[in-house]
This record gives sequence, C-alpha cells and structure tokens, in this order.
Amino acid sequence: MSLLVVGSVAFDDVETRFGRRERILGGSASYFSMAASRFAPVRMVAVVGEDFPQETLDDFAARGCDTAGIERAPGKTFYWRGKYSPDFSTRTTLETQLNVFAGFTPKLPPRFCDAKFLFLANIHPDLQLQVLDAMTNDPFVAGDTMNLWITTEKPTLEKLVSRLQLITVNDEEARQLTGQWHLLQAGRAIQKMGPRTVILKKGEHGALLFHDDALFFAPAFPLASFVDPTGAGDTFAGGFMGSLARDGVVNAASLRRAMFYGTVAASFTCEHFSVDGLRDLTLERLDERFAGLVDFTNCG
Amino acid sequence: MSLLVVGSVAFDDVETRFGRRERILGGSASYFSMAASRFAPVRMVAVVGEDFPQETLDDFAARGCDTAGIERAPGKTFYWRGKYSPDFSTRTTLETQLNVFAGFTPKLPPRFCDAKFLFLANIHPDLQLQVLDAMTNDPFVAGDTMNLWITTEKPTLEKLVSRLQLITVNDEEARQLTGQWHLLQAGRAIQKMGPRTVILKKGEHGALLFHDDALFFAPAFPLASFVDPTGAGDTFAGGFMGSLARDGVVNAASLRRAMFYGTVAASFTCEHFSVDGLRDLTLERLDERFAGLVDFTNCG
Repeated sequence: MSLLVVGSVAFDDVETRFGRRERILGGSASYFSMAASRFAPVRMVAVVGEDFPQETLDDFAARGCDTAGIERAPGKTFYWRGKYSPDFSTRTTLETQLNVFAGFTPKLPPRFCDAKFLFLANIHPDLQLQVLDAMTNDPFVAGDTMNLWITTEKPTLEKLVSRLQLITVNDEEARQLTGQWHLLQAGRAIQKMGPRTVILKKGEHGALLFHDDALFFAPAFPLASFVDPTGAGDTFAGGFMGSLARDGVVNAASLRRAMFYGTVAASFTCEHFSVDGLRDLTLERLDERFAGLVDFTNCG
Repeated sequence: MSLLVVGSVAFDDVETRFGRRERILGGSASYFSMAASRFAPVRMVAVVGEDFPQETLDDFAARGCDTAGIERAPGKTFYWRGKYSPDFSTRTTLETQLNVFAGFTPKLPPRFCDAKFLFLANIHPDLQLQVLDAMTNDPFVAGDTMNLWITTEKPTLEKLVSRLQLITVNDEEARQLTGQWHLLQAGRAIQKMGPRTVILKKGEHGALLFHDDALFFAPAFPLASFVDPTGAGDTFAGGFMGSLARDGVVNAASLRRAMFYGTVAASFTCEHFSVDGLRDLTLERLDERFAGLVDFTNCG
C-alpha cells in the first residue's frame, strides 16, 4: 500500500573510530526511503538546495521512490557534521547548517495525499501537524521526534502525539516526555497520551514495542563489522513502515514482523557510511537476515 | 543431576536510587544457589566467619542446598559496600573487607567431587583450578571471572579458560581478554581459547550465547519495577546451570532454555534488595516468566 514520508535530505560529515567521510548523503527521509522502498513504493516529501545532485534524486526514483514532493529551493542543502566517541556511546554535533531546511514548509503533490501509511520523521511538530492535516484517506500515522521539541514545543508536540497511531522515541525522550524513570512505565504513559503503539529505540541494544497490553522485543542484528550508526534509527523506521505497508494491515503479527524488518534494514546501514549499505540491498538479503534474527531469538 | 558451586558468601551494604540496605546477604554462591536450587540440588563450597548466622545456612539447606562445603572460619564474613549511580550505569565499590575470604581455600567434602555440573564463580583462578582438579567425574565446567584477574593473573586465567566448557564474561572483560573491540569477534576469540560456549553478559541489555557457530540472544526480562541489580549475574548463572543440570544434557536446545531460565531468575533478584526476590520463588513463577519471555521475543 502507499507509503508517504516527510523528513530531511542532507549532506553529512561523519567521523567514527573507523574513518571519516565528507559530504555524504544523509537525512531522515533518505535513510527511510532507501529502506522502505525495498518493500513498497515510497512518496518522499523534503527539501534540497541548488547544490544537491540530480543523480541522487534519480537514484531515489530508480528505487521506486516518487520524488515529486522533494522541493528544490534556492540556497544550500541541510548540512550536519558530527563525531562519535570511540565506543559509540556518545555523538557530538560539531556543526549544523539548516540552510534551505530553515524555511521548509512541506509541499505535498495532491496525488500524495491519499497515502495509507504516513511516517512523520523528526521535524518541527507544527510541520508534522500540517502534513497530517493534508491527508485525505485516514492513514496509519507514525511519527518520530527529538528532545529539542519536547523542551521547546511541548504543547504542540502533545497535540501531535495525541493524533499518532505510533510513535518512536529513545530512552531519554521517553523519560523526558513522561517524567517516568522506569522505561516500561514511560512507554505505558506515552500510550495514554494517544498512540496505541510505542517503539522505544535503544540503538545497539535493540527496540521495544508496546502494542495495546503486549510487549515485544527485537535485539539489534549481531554484526561482526560495525562502521557508522548514523541513520540507523531512520532506516529502522523505513524497514518497519515498509513492511507494514507491504502487509497492508496493522496487527500484532504485522507489527512484530515490521520490528524485525526494521532491525534487519538498520543492520545494513551500520556496516557502512551513509546509505552505502542500502544501495544494492535486495529483499532476498533482507529475508536472509530476517531468518537469522528469528533463529537468534528462538528459544524453541 | 548434581550441581556444585564454589564462590563467595558475604554481607553487603548496598545503595541505589531506591534505597539503602545494610548487612544484607550477598556473595556469588548465595545468589547462585538460591536460584539453581529451584531446578536441582546444589552443593555449596564457600567460607563464612563466626558472625554468620546459622539460620541463613539452615535456609540454604531447607531450599535443597548441601552446605557441608561451607567452612566456618575464625574471623568475620566477607563484606562489601557499594553504591549505584542513579541510572545504574556505574557501580562504585566504597569498601571491601575480605576477612575470612582472604585465606580461603576451597574444601570439598569427598562426596561433592562426583558432581556432573560445576560452576566456578568469580574467585582467584588458582582456587578455581584447585576445585577443577578435585573433580572425579568429568563434569560440565562453567566459570566466571573479573577484570582484576585478567590484569594480574593472565597466565593462570588462560590455563583455567582452556579447561572450561563454558565461560561467562561481560563486554569489558571480553575485550580485555582478547584485545578485540567488536564483541562478536571477542566472543569467537574466547571460544578459540578453549570454551565451546561463551556467554557475554550485558546486564539490563541481556545476554548473548556463543555455542559452536551459533548465536542466541536472551533480552533482560521487562520489569516495571527495578530496585537493585546486585547479584543479577550470579543469579543468572544459577538459573542457567540449574536448568542445564535439570535437563542433564548440554546441547543447543538445553543451552537456549538455560539462557531464558537464567534471565528469568535474574529478573526476580533485580526487583528487591539482596536475595529477597528469590526467597519464596517457585518453579511455577519461573515458568510463568519463562513463557512471558518466549512471547516477548516471538516473531511468529
């Protein structure tokens, strides 16, 4: 079924203990779409600057992404530079240039508005609400956010959260949003704010799904090589929403399957810089690791 | 089948964000035996001082533990005082009094020596080797260690490790022991040192089993209440070895089952101070959480 994402497309400079790369493709919508498009056609809403290569947009299109919602605005593309500590426990942002992202207002081509699955990547909650208001076909709506909006835009964010069917948060955001220290209690408190389903992302330590009264856990896929986690969360969201959109239904079984596909997709991102691990990714390779993850957690 | 543990019995003072308790029962052999005895009879080898209450020894006996290997020596019982950071990410040792533990030499009653399952909790590797040498019935041998012995007793430790069928280590110990940063590579490198099976303990983030070429993951049991993690690793080992001893065979299926029983047993320890969560623990309650853990990780 039709899947729409709104988020960022960016240039990143990234340094980890395994190397440094400059001006590589980044942004939540990039990672999301590269992963989700293995499962279902993706409609992308984002903004790039005049410096963004047309070939990259063509690459997205060749992978089954409709890029008609990617506006090319005067100025430069969003730029982020960051560095990970040797053990990857902390990430330091060294520079952020919002550039064209500063004045971004999502512009949805009319044919995008009937999507059945919508992912609101981490942008200002006002913009997330605008996109939500533009939808015409009662989609399944999932959203991401960040600590900044919890601090500066809490009322707007709460309005948004009340309209989400699913939200993804990390440990810190869950605690900050609810004031609950115990993560199980924080997850349950977020469900009471609106979303029937909450995904608590723990990076290398996996992801926890709250759905109604049930809990489900997907550990990170065990990797012998790990280079750069940038974009892993957005890739997870892409694999997750792609799997749901392919299944076309949201229930306990499809959500668990989506958790595993999200996890598996993210593993390919972590093995390389940028979206390089997703470029030649096939459904066959995703299915191979999916089977591996089932065995990895199967107590018989 | 018969299960033997050698380790410590101690008094602890513990402080966490949820409170402080003084002079509570601690020590690796205590936690191990309280958990393992739910599955199989346990033979305990340890030392206590003149100040140690006979009722506690009687408690162990009432739970199916043979305490004939617990020596009562002149002097005071081993004492440890520690404090956890509010987020439980670090633990600071504030005081250690080895007391009778300083001169400890394990004394095995002759009838203990034919045990089929042996767990060498974290004590000096020379003492672990002594116990191993005293065994007469080719037992399945599992051992724990710590960073101190990796630093100060590496040759002795390597000799021990070469004779273990299974070793439990945490992330830091695995890296220190092998010089490998990637944990998958570290686990594989430890297998090359001798043990066919390695358990990498990650505390609240679960435990990873390496067995031959296979990998299996047990996430921590999701708890709504979490008070004190002291002894969780030793409880895990107790549930794990107890389950193996009950099954009487070591293979892929029994190891996976043991991982889950270890995890479930440890969850009861974390809900209370000391061994309080294990005191009234029944196999029925362990089985309930075992089923919960299966559902928690079941992708269908």
